[in-house]
This record gives sequence, C-alpha cells and structure tokens, in this order.
Amino acid sequence: MVGNKHSIIRLLKYKSSLLRFRILGFKRVFSDNLADAADVTAAQVRKDFSLFGIPGNRRGGYQIDELLSRLNSLLGKDVVQKVIIVGAGHIGSALMKYKGFDKEGIQITAGFDIDPDKIQREAEIPVYPFDEMKDYIKNNDIKIGIISVTEMFAQHVLDGMVEAGIKGVLNFAPVKLKGPDEVFISNVDLLGELEKVIYFVKSAESRMVS
Amino acid sequence: MVGNKHSIIRLLKYKSSLLRFRILGFKRVFSDNLADAADVTAAQVRKDFSLFGIPGNRRGGYQIDELLSRLNSLLGKDVVQKVIIVGAGHIGSALMKYKGFDKEGIQITAGFDIDPDKIQREAEIPVYPFDEMKDYIKNNDIKIGIISVTEMFAQHVLDGMVEAGIKGVLNFAPVKLKGPDEVFISNVDLLGELEKVIYFVKSAESRMVS
Repeated sequence: MVGNKHSIIRLLKYKSSLLRFRILGFKRVFSDNLADAADVTAAQVRKDFSLFGIPGNRRGGYQIDELLSRLNSLLGKDVVQKVIIVGAGHIGSALMKYKGFDKEGIQITAGFDIDPDKIQREAEIPVYPFDEMKDYIKNNDIKIGIISVTEMFAQHVLDGMVEAGIKGVLNFAPVKLKGPDEVFISNVDLLGELEKVIYFVKSAESRMVS
Repeated sequence: MVGNKHSIIRLLKYKSSLLRFRILGFKRVFSDNLADAADVTAAQVRKDFSLFGIPGNRRGGYQIDELLSRLNSLLGKDVVQKVIIVGAGHIGSALMKYKGFDKEGIQITAGFDIDPDKIQREAEIPVYPFDEMKDYIKNNDIKIGIISVTEMFAQHVLDGMVEAGIKGVLNFAPVKLKGPDEVFISNVDLLGELEKVIYFVKSAESRMVS
C-alpha cells in the first residue's frame, strides 16, 4: 500500500471517472480526461500514476481496463470487503439495500439492532440482536463497521466495535465519536449537510434583497 | 445574513454542541466548551460570536437558550424550510422518514419518482410523479431539493429543479453535478466515504505486516 490521504482520494476519483468512461464505451483515456474529472492537473495525474508504478504514455493514453485493474489492486478492491451495520432504522436499512456497494466489492454481511422488532435472522442480510455484535465481529473477522444509531447510543456502539476488532467506521450519528488513534472514523452528517445548503440559499437571497 | 462558508460551518457546529449541552441539562456554556466541541480555539469562538453581535463574557459564559435563539435567527432557522426529495428509492425514502430534520425546522414536503409503483399521493409525505415536480416547485415556492436518483438521471433532475427555481441541492447520486453558479450544490458520496474508510484500514494493516 502506498500514498497519503490526498493521493488516495485522487485515486478513488480517477477510478470513478474510469468507470464512467467505460460505461460510455471508451477503451482508452488520457491524463487530460482524468484531470478534468478529478479536478487536478494532467501533470498531477501522470505523477500519481508513475508514483504508483502505472505506466502510460502521453500519446497512447491508458487502457481503461488495465488501469482499473491496477487501481483496484492498489486500492485493495480485488477482495470482497465485509462490512456490518449497527442500527437497522431508516438510514441503516437503506444502506443495507444500497446497490452501489455490491458493485465495488463491498458486502454488507449483517445488521444489528437493539429493537427486537427489527431482528430478522433469515433475511438476505440478516439483522441480529446488538448483544451478538462483538462475537460476530470476532468470528467473521470484520474490520469495517457502519454506525446508524441515534446520537445517544453511537459512542457505546463504537466502543463495542473497537473492543471486538473493528478498525474503520463510517458514522451517520450526528455526533463526533472518539476512538483510539488506530481506528479510522469518517463522519457523514446528513443534517449538517442539508443545513449548509439551506444556509447558503438564505444567505444568497438576503444579498439579493439588500 | 453574515459570514463566509467557514464561519457558517463553525456556527452550525456550535449549534449542534449547544443542543447536546442542553440535553445534558446545562444552562450555560463557556467558549472553551464550544471550542472543544467544534475543534477550534476558544478565542475563535469568542471572535465569531462578537463578530455576529452575540455578547458574552469569559466568566459568566453564555446562556445556552439565548445563544441558541440568536444562532437560529442568524442561521435562518426561525422559519420552517420546505424541501423536496426526488427519487423515492431506499435512500430517498429513508431521508423522508429521517427524524433529525423535523427538529431543525426542516420539512420534507413531497417526494417525486418516475416509477409509478412508488407514487403515494395520500401518504403523510406524498410521493408524486416526476412530471409534476416543476409545477410543485413553482406553486409551493420550494428553494431546496434533495436528489437521490441514480447517476444516470441525476443531471436531468437537477436541470429541471433549477429551471423551476430551486437554489440549493443536496445530491446523493454518485456523480458531480453541474449547475449554474447561483445554485449551491452539496454532494454526499456514500460509496466514496465507505471506500475511504476501507482503504485506510487496508493501508494500516499492510503497514503492520511490512
């Protein structure tokens, strides 16, 4: 594995552009195409690729399929990544059914909830009682968890996940969670995002009036 | 309306911390409390508040209720903000039911979908055919829209929204949408966020092995 946080984010952008180019029927791309799509310079694209040992030349461009398979292997996408979700409410259930994950080799293997009404042991993606989470994580060697519980329970869920061996968390609870340094936590604040949009619209409106 | 993008994001953070302090039973907070919660310095908190005309003093701190009502009025939260959602799939439906919005004066007034099976004119939050979206936006003076359709339809939905008068968009489709400059678009890339978490975990694992 190579690269820092920023270069990885660029690689993910290149990859999503490549998938789009492929859908459009292209076989080859040029650094300029990827630069446009990822909002960087073409020189940056070539630098990233050469740093990561991906050859290419300016005239011939890159073969999309080859580039994708190199990126997938760099990004660790050549093996299925198992993920659990804790909180089978509206957001959690929607994520369990989200089709975008499958295509990227991400498999939601189970959900967990404290509400007995939400338990579904026989479902395609089973939902188990929260009490069983730690054992499940250990027995199935799960490293990634999604938290979609209310603010009040989120830290408790995180603590349990970390104790059982989870190393990366995507958190949808509207609270900044604290974990040990070696656990990577990414927060998606849905309400905060919508509030930002609303604020900017109001702000622009008032500028037009004044 | 005042402030730039960064100061607004800080105000939103202060606000969400204040709500949390209030839930915990506090009546007053100090700039240090808010600084911790928003990851800035206490001096920055005091500077923001004085810039926005909110008085306070270091010893006495701020009255939480008073501060919240000042922030709400600054952030335009004292009136209900009407929002529509286009795409009543898993994510769209989950957002319609998301309880966090109500509390913040955000009201999802309607959903829209192209799939006849998803139309529910009589539901608490009705779902109408996509064809009716533009008239609805105009007739109800809607300024904010959420897009939760697939990548392929997202730009078409955005174009229709903008034509009808939408000024701010929260986009969940995994594609960077282009709109006119005066329309504010915030993209939430759920798959991208999860991919980042996975990558960092893999990257840390390989460092431990090597």
